[in-house]
Amino acid sequence: MVVRLIVSYRGAAYAGWQRQDNALAVQEVLEEALARLVGSPVRAVGASRTDAGVHARGQAAHLEPPAAVADWPLRGLVHGTNHLLPEDVRVLAADRMAAGFHARRAARGKEYCYRMSRAAVLSPLDAPYVLRVPARIDAAAMAAAAAALVGRHDFSAFALAGGAHTQPFRTIAAAAVEAVGEVGEAGEAGAELRFRVVGDGFLRGMVRALVGTLLEVGLGRRAPADVAALLGGAARGAAGATAPAHGLVLERVLYPPEWQPLPP
Amino acid sequence: MVVRLIVSYRGAAYAGWQRQDNALAVQEVLEEALARLVGSPVRAVGASRTDAGVHARGQAAHLEPPAAVADWPLRGLVHGTNHLLPEDVRVLAADRMAAGFHARRAARGKEYCYRMSRAAVLSPLDAPYVLRVPARIDAAAMAAAAAALVGRHDFSAFALAGGAHTQPFRTIAAAAVEAVGEVGEAGEAGAELRFRVVGDGFLRGMVRALVGTLLEVGLGRRAPADVAALLGGAARGAAGATAPAHGLVLERVLYPPEWQPLPP
Repeated sequence: MVVRLIVSYRGAAYAGWQRQDNALAVQEVLEEALARLVGSPVRAVGASRTDAGVHARGQAAHLEPPAAVADWPLRGLVHGTNHLLPEDVRVLAADRMAAGFHARRAARGKEYCYRMSRAAVLSPLDAPYVLRVPARIDAAAMAAAAAALVGRHDFSAFALAGGAHTQPFRTIAAAAVEAVGEVGEAGEAGAELRFRVVGDGFLRGMVRALVGTLLEVGLGRRAPADVAALLGGAARGAAGATAPAHGLVLERVLYPPEWQPLPP
Repeated sequence: MVVRLIVSYRGAAYAGWQRQDNALAVQEVLEEALARLVGSPVRAVGASRTDAGVHARGQAAHLEPPAAVADWPLRGLVHGTNHLLPEDVRVLAADRMAAGFHARRAARGKEYCYRMSRAAVLSPLDAPYVLRVPARIDAAAMAAAAAALVGRHDFSAFALAGGAHTQPFRTIAAAAVEAVGEVGEAGEAGAELRFRVVGDGFLRGMVRALVGTLLEVGLGRRAPADVAALLGGAARGAAGATAPAHGLVLERVLYPPEWQPLPP
């Protein structure tokens, strides 16, 4: 029996999802809470290796519960684990999956959201999750460049060196930049910009490299069409800088119909 | 010359807006940052006395800057003050106002938002700002009850004892409960409920007492029509409990056309 967890965390205090020798990772915190709960070591395999400082609303992970607790109600697993977790990490849900389910290998895609704001000063309610950008940034140009990302492309120009990717092609199902929030008194569009992207997978650092490149378009330093031109295997240096981690949220991991939760 | 500040804060660490003898208030933190910046004592008068733990996106306050700094660019006042503030309080904007402007007395109204969620577990990204409520809570019944609040009524049933109100009538311009967020896989409405209310003023504790009463409607313990019946001067005990502070945000303070910012 395999259990899939949906995990949400604020990333500020963590070196990303994946367990590391010299820094605290979300995986370690979660595995230790699970181990304390069930009384034996537990390994939780995450679908996405989020980078240091990146947040998650819907990270997915799987574990094989020790036989002694296989009959526990999943609600007990959720609330018991949450009681042992720090307040910036929570298990939102747990589902039984058929044998063979693997959170990373079974994933069909992921959705990320990156928040930016043109406000002169960020509200403290938003600041931990939003990158401040110049007020004059051109959302329409960014949206045009984002639209060009849809499809199957070689994203080498957006991959962090050090990622162990077997091949650089990924398929982007949706990519958009939207101005959200209220229209200002002068009729201007909402101050907040959100880049939402859904793809079958992402190279290491790819979403933040896309955002950094879109920001150069928004600032007029690069034409929207330049982004499309980078999608054929250009070098990493040809694209923009990596945007800061704190604006990024892993919204959800998508699974195909053959990997849906079993009836409780 | 009078300067109006728009101030945003996370309320968790504060005993509300108003300066107190035995607890740290946002007003004190802001006045001390301003005093350090300008080199002499500054008094900042807030439009709304938010309670302990209540957040603000758009609190308004006014101050009379010492003559020595009256010519400073307001941008310098904003960024200089923010540099001296803790990260959970920020001045979002500053405007010059005509002589006689008073943040509280000039206010024509205020908008509040209270967030609730029917999720089994709250994401750590939302938990500081959202009250968890039972999944079965009836949003449509709450919305019907909220609609009855619109108009001019005697809100005595929703006033905290100890508020020094000269009269208990207030006019509510808009009140609504909306389900937001995504529709679930089973087609159910969004898990998050938001109560938004705009009024010409609010008695002490009134928004949270309204929320507590609406929640009783949502739980089926009170009919929607019962809320309307409380609007004629009923005793505080006849309404529901006061909802927790952390779900509430003062969104903005509204000023009439005669009190708009002067040209910079």
